[in-house]
Amino acid sequence: MTKLWGGRFKKKTHPLVEKFTSSIVYDYKLAKYDVLGSIAHAKMLGKCKIILAKDSAKIVQGLKSILGQIEKGKFAFDKGVEDIHSNIQNILGKKIGKVAEKLHTARSRNDQVATDLRMYAKEEIKNQKSKIKNLQLALVNFAKKNIEVVIPGFTHLQHAQPVSLAHHLLAYVEMLERDKARLSDTYKRCDVLPLGSGALSGTSLPIDRNYLAKALGFAAVSANSIDAVSDRDFVLEILANVSILSMHLSRMAEDLILWMSPEFGLLELDDAFCTGSSLMPQKKNPDVLELVRANAGASYGNLISLLVTMKGLPLSYNRDMQLDKLPLFSSLEDLNGCLEVLSASIESAQINKNQALILSSDELLCATDLAEYLVKKGVAFKEAHNIMGKIVSYALGKQKFLSEIPLGQWKKFSACFEKDIYKLLDSETCVSAKKSSGGTSPQQVKKQLQNWKKRLR
Amino acid sequence: MTKLWGGRFKKKTHPLVEKFTSSIVYDYKLAKYDVLGSIAHAKMLGKCKIILAKDSAKIVQGLKSILGQIEKGKFAFDKGVEDIHSNIQNILGKKIGKVAEKLHTARSRNDQVATDLRMYAKEEIKNQKSKIKNLQLALVNFAKKNIEVVIPGFTHLQHAQPVSLAHHLLAYVEMLERDKARLSDTYKRCDVLPLGSGALSGTSLPIDRNYLAKALGFAAVSANSIDAVSDRDFVLEILANVSILSMHLSRMAEDLILWMSPEFGLLELDDAFCTGSSLMPQKKNPDVLELVRANAGASYGNLISLLVTMKGLPLSYNRDMQLDKLPLFSSLEDLNGCLEVLSASIESAQINKNQALILSSDELLCATDLAEYLVKKGVAFKEAHNIMGKIVSYALGKQKFLSEIPLGQWKKFSACFEKDIYKLLDSETCVSAKKSSGGTSPQQVKKQLQNWKKRLR
Amino acid sequence: MTKLWGGRFKKKTHPLVEKFTSSIVYDYKLAKYDVLGSIAHAKMLGKCKIILAKDSAKIVQGLKSILGQIEKGKFAFDKGVEDIHSNIQNILGKKIGKVAEKLHTARSRNDQVATDLRMYAKEEIKNQKSKIKNLQLALVNFAKKNIEVVIPGFTHLQHAQPVSLAHHLLAYVEMLERDKARLSDTYKRCDVLPLGSGALSGTSLPIDRNYLAKALGFAAVSANSIDAVSDRDFVLEILANVSILSMHLSRMAEDLILWMSPEFGLLELDDAFCTGSSLMPQKKNPDVLELVRANAGASYGNLISLLVTMKGLPLSYNRDMQLDKLPLFSSLEDLNGCLEVLSASIESAQINKNQALILSSDELLCATDLAEYLVKKGVAFKEAHNIMGKIVSYALGKQKFLSEIPLGQWKKFSACFEKDIYKLLDSETCVSAKKSSGGTSPQQVKKQLQNWKKRLR
Amino acid sequence: MTKLWGGRFKKKTHPLVEKFTSSIVYDYKLAKYDVLGSIAHAKMLGKCKIILAKDSAKIVQGLKSILGQIEKGKFAFDKGVEDIHSNIQNILGKKIGKVAEKLHTARSRNDQVATDLRMYAKEEIKNQKSKIKNLQLALVNFAKKNIEVVIPGFTHLQHAQPVSLAHHLLAYVEMLERDKARLSDTYKRCDVLPLGSGALSGTSLPIDRNYLAKALGFAAVSANSIDAVSDRDFVLEILANVSILSMHLSRMAEDLILWMSPEFGLLELDDAFCTGSSLMPQKKNPDVLELVRANAGASYGNLISLLVTMKGLPLSYNRDMQLDKLPLFSSLEDLNGCLEVLSASIESAQINKNQALILSSDELLCATDLAEYLVKKGVAFKEAHNIMGKIVSYALGKQKFLSEIPLGQWKKFSACFEKDIYKLLDSETCVSAKKSSGGTSPQQVKKQLQNWKKRLR
Repeated sequence: MTKLWGGRFKKKTHPLVEKFTSSIVYDYKLAKYDVLGSIAHAKMLGKCKIILAKDSAKIVQGLKSILGQIEKGKFAFDKGVEDIHSNIQNILGKKIGKVAEKLHTARSRNDQVATDLRMYAKEEIKNQKSKIKNLQLALVNFAKKNIEVVIPGFTHLQHAQPVSLAHHLLAYVEMLERDKARLSDTYKRCDVLPLGSGALSGTSLPIDRNYLAKALGFAAVSANSIDAVSDRDFVLEILANVSILSMHLSRMAEDLILWMSPEFGLLELDDAFCTGSSLMPQKKNPDVLELVRANAGASYGNLISLLVTMKGLPLSYNRDMQLDKLPLFSSLEDLNGCLEVLSASIESAQINKNQALILSSDELLCATDLAEYLVKKGVAFKEAHNIMGKIVSYALGKQKFLSEIPLGQWKKFSACFEKDIYKLLDSETCVSAKKSSGGTSPQQVKKQLQNWKKRLR
Repeated sequence: MTKLWGGRFKKKTHPLVEKFTSSIVYDYKLAKYDVLGSIAHAKMLGKCKIILAKDSAKIVQGLKSILGQIEKGKFAFDKGVEDIHSNIQNILGKKIGKVAEKLHTARSRNDQVATDLRMYAKEEIKNQKSKIKNLQLALVNFAKKNIEVVIPGFTHLQHAQPVSLAHHLLAYVEMLERDKARLSDTYKRCDVLPLGSGALSGTSLPIDRNYLAKALGFAAVSANSIDAVSDRDFVLEILANVSILSMHLSRMAEDLILWMSPEFGLLELDDAFCTGSSLMPQKKNPDVLELVRANAGASYGNLISLLVTMKGLPLSYNRDMQLDKLPLFSSLEDLNGCLEVLSASIESAQINKNQALILSSDELLCATDLAEYLVKKGVAFKEAHNIMGKIVSYALGKQKFLSEIPLGQWKKFSACFEKDIYKLLDSETCVSAKKSSGGTSPQQVKKQLQNWKKRLR
Repeated sequence: MTKLWGGRFKKKTHPLVEKFTSSIVYDYKLAKYDVLGSIAHAKMLGKCKIILAKDSAKIVQGLKSILGQIEKGKFAFDKGVEDIHSNIQNILGKKIGKVAEKLHTARSRNDQVATDLRMYAKEEIKNQKSKIKNLQLALVNFAKKNIEVVIPGFTHLQHAQPVSLAHHLLAYVEMLERDKARLSDTYKRCDVLPLGSGALSGTSLPIDRNYLAKALGFAAVSANSIDAVSDRDFVLEILANVSILSMHLSRMAEDLILWMSPEFGLLELDDAFCTGSSLMPQKKNPDVLELVRANAGASYGNLISLLVTMKGLPLSYNRDMQLDKLPLFSSLEDLNGCLEVLSASIESAQINKNQALILSSDELLCATDLAEYLVKKGVAFKEAHNIMGKIVSYALGKQKFLSEIPLGQWKKFSACFEKDIYKLLDSETCVSAKKSSGGTSPQQVKKQLQNWKKRLR
Repeated sequence: MTKLWGGRFKKKTHPLVEKFTSSIVYDYKLAKYDVLGSIAHAKMLGKCKIILAKDSAKIVQGLKSILGQIEKGKFAFDKGVEDIHSNIQNILGKKIGKVAEKLHTARSRNDQVATDLRMYAKEEIKNQKSKIKNLQLALVNFAKKNIEVVIPGFTHLQHAQPVSLAHHLLAYVEMLERDKARLSDTYKRCDVLPLGSGALSGTSLPIDRNYLAKALGFAAVSANSIDAVSDRDFVLEILANVSILSMHLSRMAEDLILWMSPEFGLLELDDAFCTGSSLMPQKKNPDVLELVRANAGASYGNLISLLVTMKGLPLSYNRDMQLDKLPLFSSLEDLNGCLEVLSASIESAQINKNQALILSSDELLCATDLAEYLVKKGVAFKEAHNIMGKIVSYALGKQKFLSEIPLGQWKKFSACFEKDIYKLLDSETCVSAKKSSGGTSPQQVKKQLQNWKKRLR
């Protein structure tokens, strides 16, 4: 009694086919949701008098006992049985006997697995959102601890303008907030119950789908049975969200890896978060960050994998759709690992403040402020830009710092320059001047930090 | 005066570099948004007294004249000028003289292009949603015209249970509704103004970003200038949404192509929507549907393209991000074409009702209803399934239709069978019985149709 | 003694990091190659007098004992130890004591793992090529068994021209032959030994890399140590080859699924190669073929995954590259399963010859031959095409078969038509006429079959 | 007379369909190959007496005149005509009258376009290989100019061991050589002629395909007509090869971008190869390199695009396959641009030799050599590694350079240390010691350079 079908077949399934079509090695992860779904289903069958009340009660009791085993990690999956649904059905049969055969009434594995997967997705979205929040908190705390640190801001990996380190870190907090928002939007679309759609057409038995939705905590029931069993949009949305999120993490990892290079020297991770080399005794490597960066590849791959699988499939359910689970499970487990280890790594990290000072003392970082100085004196920006470009060129040619150029020389480029320009050749001054909304001035950054403090509570 | 930079450079840009870095061949599509953004920006500069009121007015006037040219399709792009921003700046200079040099104050191309792209994205989302709605309407109308048609429902491309054609079509309407919902969610995240973030750090000039947001119809201003210029999430979201949508369209196309094959023979497209062969005189091919199906490839490719480009980029802006535009433009234009041509194709299509009758007369489609018949008589479903499996096997072995098997023979499989089973061997009867919520019974399908009629108004 | 590094670290690795960076759960698959590589390495170290001969001998002996365990499936991997290299090093230490510490001399895990992976790749390429050949043989045998069967040839899933079933099947044999050729080309690039490149720069110890290459069966040693440890081209090539191959299999699966649909009815798979439904008792589903089709998604995903991971990595080795293994292992194992199960499925399949006759009796399939008939009489092809198009249109309008149109009517379209046209309205005749090289005539197809018989010996 | 089909159609094609299915906006690039193919085809038709010799001559003459126009860039494509084949057919008709209608005999657009595309592919492979060679030469020359420069070698973007800059550059030359080898392998599979396969089944007319192959410079004719029109493997191979190549270029770009950052300060690109900022006057950005890096995204996207399009297509030709051209054209044109601009950029680049000295003076780079020093004295490597790890840890704790630690202190870690260790604390010494084959010693690197000099001649 290992299969949920077979009456019309005259031959046993070929062993190669058994192995090739089996999904139990990964769909065992749905065990909890499968049992919960079955409990609700059995109750509904009883309530709607599709099966006898006492049969319903027996089934529910048997399933609860299985649930207990699953929760204790003591459920023994039989890898010889094709999927989690058949596994549980079999064990139920062993526990409660022939009445177990009444459970799979008015239900197909098509609507059953879609239900399991949505329950899993909903729980995982909540879990991941909480992990993202932890990472945001780690970033906010790291920003607070280093509130006064100024670093060179980069565009094109060239020195652009000085920025507050906290401001840089909060850029990631913004990205992560969008990631949570995307997951919340997806959650709404997960929160629709397919159970009761049968194989594709609904059922002739008098089921109560609203009861099921309520029992299983779904906000709504699906409106079209064909769509309900054919739809994996919610999985694709999660995979897309995780891809964008993993891209954010890859950027964060890249920044941190750069900062840890001897040439930048801005960041030190704790020994406990680095690894060494089997050949080179001096090495202390940011392997964790590299694996976080690399994980973008795996998550993009999972997204493409399911998009391709779904491409061009006729309605309704096709077995191809079994390949939705591995990408989903793999992307979410990898993400979970990345978020945890990144949060802990950042909590352990130290900024090399002295090096931050050295790097941000590059006076060219202030060239834009000097152009804006000219604008305030009435020079058209384009001209101001041109003047400053020429001064930079002059300084580079003479191998001088801007502060080493005497005022008289400045005035040759523009009569508007006065003594006060020298004060502008300072990163902290430049940072302080960026008072525009969303800018990098301490005033703005503190506002952002307070805002996050509230939002991440 | 063709570049927005250059003062510090001692050599002219190499022609290979000019060509390689140029984006005007595609970013000219942003012209309208670029000018609208500049008009708001110039007004704000005047209002905030960063430039003189009269200069602001002159610039605005010049830009409005350019806008007029663009809207009339008469703006002459200069392909020798690297991008749309420089193009417009140059023309403005020619129109209004030196005062044009004041426009690009307190602004970088980094925040400017992000603003342009968001304006484009917002308008396109509205456009595509309306096109999706048209396709939904075409499907709903097609469903209504063929409300009585029953076809075999398929799982695994094998006959499963009979379904209403309208029900099948409405499955696509459901998918498309989710597509619109996803675009609406993305719209919220497009609706945040980056302008005023400068190159990456904000500005030392006293700008008013809320004024800009209001003038340009944005719901909010971005909170972090580094994030604002580094963020392309909104583009990725659109590309992911279009990928899922194009997957839906590929499935619809696949169904229709199958239905048009001589073997299915269910659907006829109008001659005006088919093409022929240069060699085979009899051919009438569904090229339109094939190209719609194929388009999934292009849209997935565009999604992957930008995901890859963004992977591992350090903050903040990097030139890599210029490669966000081609995928976005291409995915949206392709989608627009697919939606238009599919809507029109479906409006022109005819169902071969006679063939629908023939195909759905396969009595095996009713096997499940007979199992549920047994369940209503108290047989456990698993046993009922097994009984019916054996009967099917018997019928196939004898090469008989189920209706050809005498009752006595049925009773050998289960004593519960009575004369009324023969009435169940009818697709329409089976369809009518699926009264469960979301099921394929006429009653449920009419409810769905009414619901869509309201929602798509 | 669980790590190959650690001297400079003052803290233990954080448990989260241990778990996150561990690769033993998948790289245990390299165990055999790792030991074989180490045996050759130890011998070389002894031969070059970098370690004592007796130490070399002891190490080799220890490793051989480990190899024996691995081959018997009795090697106990310790999941607490980060990778396969450290696992084996540890066990070796337990077996032979302190002398084991001399093995990892003049070697880094960077060149070691690259070597292991290349050895694995070489063996797997041989294995897969043999599996591909089996599938080719299954197709050739199936073709031979049904040598006389004519089916409609399709373009655009519309009837195009009649073709020999064997010719259709041999199209797949051609594709598979290219797949083998690609793998052979890739093999050449796998066959280069990185061992001896150290971490990235080579070594100051007097090693003999040619000895290693010979001992391990590599055709050459790598020429540049930095490239040697940074290169994963060979993995990407395999993943690309598998992607193209899985695309071929997806097309074959699609054809077979179509042929198995009741509407086509051309193909019957054995019960042992099909599965059923938990709800619908009559179902016999081609799940195997659907999973083969779906597998294209997984293989494309794996390809993209590693392409993304490698994108933008600076030289030389980065930990990101650890994520090369899962995609490679997964793509090759999936492929292996697909090839095996497809071969066996095809061996079990039956063509419904009667249905082939019915479907290919569509006279429109012969329209092109009639146009070519006119060409032989001197009509320009374009005109001939047009004439036949009009006749088809006429026949469809009258709802007549072409053979029902009297000669007089044909002559109204072209005076060149004579009585012999009616003989051309026959699929077998049309097939026989395609005597052009590579065409579908029995003569050509038999030539192809003979050719394959020889090549696949 | 704008279409190659139409006789059986009763309605004009819908304008939306005309626009949606048109490919002339991109397939005009095949014009030259299409005409060359047609010339050979017309000659063959004459030679085989399928058309009259004088008709063949007239057609060839007309086509040659068109070829002349195309080569002079004077062929006027009509965007209202669906594809390049119809365009040329139409113009031919206008030039030579009704006899043009005989050209498209024994040919379908299916085999015609496959032939055109293979001719294009073959020419492009030759072109790209020559561009790759130019880039290799630029790297080799740059290596030669800086033959004495030592830089820190990196793993995990941490200082690993000192390497020769030339050695680092030659790693890219190795990668590019594999890229050429892959393209050469693919060339063999492009070099098979599909022409003469008709729509899918061959032809009943007595064509001579070997004549065509010879005339068009193909090494062989395709063996199976169904495969010939359904196969796009050669396009996919090119796209895969370009993806791997673009990945290599992205890594090279990343290295160069890093080296150009102020923190590394190793590389200076010429002003002519950099661009500036519209806001920040001091900026000199490596936009070219960033776009090269980003291009990996576009090329991966193109690869995935076609892989997806081909997934699950039944045999034989389907219109989906029209979407093979844009990815192919786009990947090759982008690649061409990247190769050209990278070669020129590298030719213009300067190494900051002083900075190379400073960065490679990091004594920790020599830690491995000191461990190998101990090995030479008989210490087991694992112990030597551990000893050096402890010394590094000691030095870091004391904030001392290794050279500042007195010998007495060294001896506390191992009695084997002698005075000569201080000489090893020098990058050049360490580099010189890597005499192993493929290692970074000047001796090995010069051997590599000589080798390349010969191979790239």
